[in-house]
Amino acid sequence: MRIILDGMGSDDCPEPEVNAALQAARTFGDKITLVGPENQLKHRLDALGATETEIRLVDATDVITMKDKGISLALKAKRRNAKNSMAVGMDLMVNGDADAFVTAGNTGGALATAYYRLGLIKGVERPALSVFLPVKDGQCLILDIGANPDCKPEHLFQFAIMGAVYVEKVRGKKNPRVGLMSNGEEAGKGNQLIKDTYPILESSDLNFIGNVEGKELYGGEVDVVVTDGFTGNVVIKTSEAVAKLITDMLRTELTSSTRTKLGALLAKPAFTSIRKMMDPAETGGAPLLGVDGLVYIGHGRSDSRALFNAIRVARQGVAANFLGELRTAIQGRLAKTPTPEAS
Amino acid sequence: MRIILDGMGSDDCPEPEVNAALQAARTFGDKITLVGPENQLKHRLDALGATETEIRLVDATDVITMKDKGISLALKAKRRNAKNSMAVGMDLMVNGDADAFVTAGNTGGALATAYYRLGLIKGVERPALSVFLPVKDGQCLILDIGANPDCKPEHLFQFAIMGAVYVEKVRGKKNPRVGLMSNGEEAGKGNQLIKDTYPILESSDLNFIGNVEGKELYGGEVDVVVTDGFTGNVVIKTSEAVAKLITDMLRTELTSSTRTKLGALLAKPAFTSIRKMMDPAETGGAPLLGVDGLVYIGHGRSDSRALFNAIRVARQGVAANFLGELRTAIQGRLAKTPTPEAS
Repeated sequence: MRIILDGMGSDDCPEPEVNAALQAARTFGDKITLVGPENQLKHRLDALGATETEIRLVDATDVITMKDKGISLALKAKRRNAKNSMAVGMDLMVNGDADAFVTAGNTGGALATAYYRLGLIKGVERPALSVFLPVKDGQCLILDIGANPDCKPEHLFQFAIMGAVYVEKVRGKKNPRVGLMSNGEEAGKGNQLIKDTYPILESSDLNFIGNVEGKELYGGEVDVVVTDGFTGNVVIKTSEAVAKLITDMLRTELTSSTRTKLGALLAKPAFTSIRKMMDPAETGGAPLLGVDGLVYIGHGRSDSRALFNAIRVARQGVAANFLGELRTAIQGRLAKTPTPEAS
Repeated sequence: MRIILDGMGSDDCPEPEVNAALQAARTFGDKITLVGPENQLKHRLDALGATETEIRLVDATDVITMKDKGISLALKAKRRNAKNSMAVGMDLMVNGDADAFVTAGNTGGALATAYYRLGLIKGVERPALSVFLPVKDGQCLILDIGANPDCKPEHLFQFAIMGAVYVEKVRGKKNPRVGLMSNGEEAGKGNQLIKDTYPILESSDLNFIGNVEGKELYGGEVDVVVTDGFTGNVVIKTSEAVAKLITDMLRTELTSSTRTKLGALLAKPAFTSIRKMMDPAETGGAPLLGVDGLVYIGHGRSDSRALFNAIRVARQGVAANFLGELRTAIQGRLAKTPTPEAS
């Protein structure tokens, strides 16, 4: 498999990228393509003894940073001769020279670059950002988490197909349960978007279990949660903030007396296993769905372990021929399901 | 002060209601009005030795349950001669016979009953459900959390005024910081509703701090968070679910070995103080804002302590003359701030 890693993605780049690329090459026996400024990457690779069989270094003199936004970002993403690592990396995919692109860089940048350079899969109107959330006894894929703040029912239907195909074909979860994020479980609950989307999902051949709330999501009762990018973004950021509040409070309380300090010391294995579950580095990266190429986006705070895991999950997407499966599914399902005229 | 408690609100009613009413009467020296079926309440009050100086019992033969919804609920809420405890209780307020109504019953029922019987404050187009969330070093009022799944910018502006007046006049927080829940902190982030609401809040005389995300909300950086009822509902239910997931996992992990069990035992005071912070019984009840009467809604799982606390916070609302303050503020602020023509 031919995986590309953006050499300039993470907050601490390029150190974690160089390490992760080399570790992946040595673990999986694949040559990893690392894209970024040669003058920053070459000597680091040499210092680690990386060979040309292990790492292909592709020079990209520019970079999209976390500060890029708006029109300057769009130009970096779109320009034909753009020299930033995302554009150069994705162009390799366009040329059939690679199978998947992994980055821990600016999410909006990756989204825009993929949109302009790879285009969308036929039948998909909007790309979606996704993430696997840690839930009771497993993980749940939620999408969109930020690409489309305003959506139409047919967009949510497409997100449902994309999410279900990913979870089924790549994760091996048969007939994944698809839920619609709402403000109540009963059919008929929701804002206008949810009310208009519900019948489309209900009449589709997806395993639609209806509206879901936080308790179904985190209770492990649903495999794919579909929502607009505004709500999805609020869900993941609220979740992070609540988890942080509780763990911060625990830390404060547990160090407040000698007794609780001792208790915390003894209970340490319990905390470690929870921290591990909540750690985004465990999942590595999440697929950008709907674009015509495999793109995985990791957290900006990714370390080399997170990036290594992102390469690992990207390999799963390639192995499962996710793009091919998605193209087929989108064509088949959109043809079968009526789209409401009004929307 | 003349507080009414719905005798048939909580899941375990009327036991907790009877206890809370009597405790409140004895603690605050106010006569509490308890509304509900005399044949269920009278003998319980007698058994506790409640006097007529402490409790005024008002008979209401019908009840709105958690199962009531749709048209049957609307009829119970609206009918002139309705005999359910919410309708009878709120009618006492309409007749000037009470200052505030407290219930732990069906939220939609309380909302509909208040809407039909009390009406809205002049200038308010939509009532809003609110709740105080536990955040770092304090509490944050979030509204709407479910009354209005679809909102217009002027509704959110009215919610902002209502929330700010409540937090300032009742909670005594000077010049409360008002934030708009969004998918990014920067101005310009958001769905269309947020983009249209932002300039209205910015040009108002509210202490508008801009868009906020989960981290500002739970980080204690904002006093009032304004959102549509769909998003607000998703926020509170997601928060509850994440908190439950983490505490459930902790419980499982902490009882997984003798070592961690001992640690948990020693660390118990830390867990107790966190459980207390997350416990909705501590805040008691949240105001239903925008209706022309003071209505407080508690959690369905309220016990007598939660109901007692709800009466306590209702008394604060009465003492601060919240309704009068809100009427004045709404008139003054709506007159001053231009409403966009397009919305």
